[in-house]
Amino acid sequence: MTDIKAYAAMDAGGELKPFKYDPGAIAHDQVEIAITACGVCHSDLSMINNDWRGSKYPLIAGHEAVGTITQIGEHVKNLEVGQTVGVGWTSESCLHCSPCLSGSHQRCTSGVSTIRGHGGFADRIRVQDIWAVPLPDGMEARSAGPLFCGGITVFAPMMDFDLKPTDRVGVVGIGGLGHLALQFAKAWGCEVTAFTTSMDKEKELRELGAHRVVNSKDEDALKSLRGQFDMVLSTVNVNLPWHRYMSALAPEGRLITVGMVGEPMGISAGQLITGQKSVGGSDTGAPHMVSKMLEFCMRHDIKPMVDYFPMADINKAIAHLKSGKARYRVVLEN
Amino acid sequence: MTDIKAYAAMDAGGELKPFKYDPGAIAHDQVEIAITACGVCHSDLSMINNDWRGSKYPLIAGHEAVGTITQIGEHVKNLEVGQTVGVGWTSESCLHCSPCLSGSHQRCTSGVSTIRGHGGFADRIRVQDIWAVPLPDGMEARSAGPLFCGGITVFAPMMDFDLKPTDRVGVVGIGGLGHLALQFAKAWGCEVTAFTTSMDKEKELRELGAHRVVNSKDEDALKSLRGQFDMVLSTVNVNLPWHRYMSALAPEGRLITVGMVGEPMGISAGQLITGQKSVGGSDTGAPHMVSKMLEFCMRHDIKPMVDYFPMADINKAIAHLKSGKARYRVVLEN
Repeated sequence: MTDIKAYAAMDAGGELKPFKYDPGAIAHDQVEIAITACGVCHSDLSMINNDWRGSKYPLIAGHEAVGTITQIGEHVKNLEVGQTVGVGWTSESCLHCSPCLSGSHQRCTSGVSTIRGHGGFADRIRVQDIWAVPLPDGMEARSAGPLFCGGITVFAPMMDFDLKPTDRVGVVGIGGLGHLALQFAKAWGCEVTAFTTSMDKEKELRELGAHRVVNSKDEDALKSLRGQFDMVLSTVNVNLPWHRYMSALAPEGRLITVGMVGEPMGISAGQLITGQKSVGGSDTGAPHMVSKMLEFCMRHDIKPMVDYFPMADINKAIAHLKSGKARYRVVLEN
Repeated sequence: MTDIKAYAAMDAGGELKPFKYDPGAIAHDQVEIAITACGVCHSDLSMINNDWRGSKYPLIAGHEAVGTITQIGEHVKNLEVGQTVGVGWTSESCLHCSPCLSGSHQRCTSGVSTIRGHGGFADRIRVQDIWAVPLPDGMEARSAGPLFCGGITVFAPMMDFDLKPTDRVGVVGIGGLGHLALQFAKAWGCEVTAFTTSMDKEKELRELGAHRVVNSKDEDALKSLRGQFDMVLSTVNVNLPWHRYMSALAPEGRLITVGMVGEPMGISAGQLITGQKSVGGSDTGAPHMVSKMLEFCMRHDIKPMVDYFPMADINKAIAHLKSGKARYRVVLEN
């Protein structure tokens, strides 16, 4: 057994350094994947920086990995060596707790997240079989990684909160997640509005699916959107003037955050009550939903827009992500 | 045409005083009701006190009125003189705007609320025909008033947010609304928990439907309820330690406020995201839902528990409500 060659943070916020580990014998329900490409997500940075506490070092981040199966455990029946698969936020779940039995394996009460095991900034990774989801035939592997975390994070609330093709959707923050949300919502049949602070992206956002692009710093523009949206999906992790977005909701409308806003969100009960509105959040999705998403992407030609870096340039790639210049996701390639 | 004899607040927070007004000719789509009983709701006090701004004086509050139809307008076809009906928060809607056409007449974009017209603290009231909802045969008229605002306010979120008989429900604050919510949730088939600061009510709350009564000031008790509830329905209008109630939600659980909390609610994005939870609000309900609720009350013997006062003692009744001693709703009788 050869060691897995990875890049690890040795302490909170540190540069990533080459790091090897011996993965030991493969477990009966695991597959090993030779990683060809792995996306870099803001939550990798949060984990590296220990923003959410509980990070353990050396920490190998990376949870948008795509590659080829090189080995399978003895009880793995649904996958075979040579298949191209992707891995997202979760790498293991118990299959027996109530969330697992309800089809919400991402909420397993004893689940393991990919980063808390050994992540995808590496040449290989091992995950439980159900979390290695096969790419549909014909899907480009190189750019697919970001679908497995960024993609499913914005796809799941559309499924779970029953977005309808007749709905009007606003997407707030057009980065790695937002640029996929625009494409999903457009393909869903919805009327799509992009809220961005980078109006220089306007033409591109329209090509991605936005029927309308609104400068989210323009208070008057926000005010004028009163009562418009059935769903506003926010991908940012800072507090916004939520009362403006609440006021932009139609009756029964939902404001959904997938961004881990650090401070409590100040939400007006009066705005919730008038028109029976909601504020919600959404995590990722279970394997069956990831498969549905991949199929949907193929049918509608939905693809992450990616800036590529060689895996060895991982620190440069992270700096690029931090600079805010990524259009729209950073992917590392082996 | 004789004047309508009412009790009005002449200025913000003032005592109610006898006040007469000439209702003029009845409109083509109105009915006039001789009021036999009218509930007193906390929102009457808020309107009398101009807490929500925009109150106009003299102000005749009262929006849980029950009585007998004495007169109908020329185009009223679905009601007749002599029928016993109830009136709630809304007294008129346009029937043509999008919410009206969607069956959400309580959200009519040009609707009139009962108090902004002339309310139920009076001997008679006039409302648009659709807002005079007939009591089912055999329903006690004397105690029914509180169903038309307090009742529908807690019944509507159970309908609209698709509460299931297998769900676990928490009701926070057991007053006029809460004591009806317990009865509804019990009859719905749910597991029911009452959160109250008045543990002396425990026996009574169990009789009303609570399987469990929790002291909402007991932080340890709240902590121990982690992950329990599919719905927590809060009827209070002050900020609570929302993070505790959020933590008490099961995956996909909802915290619904029907109380007009004055300050913004501080909601953690992390708690919303983990398990895809929501915080929502709910207003009242349209006439078709009020009818469904009344039918449900008859089938399950659900009835407001009421302290009665003569209409002439309206200021005493209001003082009783303010004292927090009402068990559980105050009703005025003509």
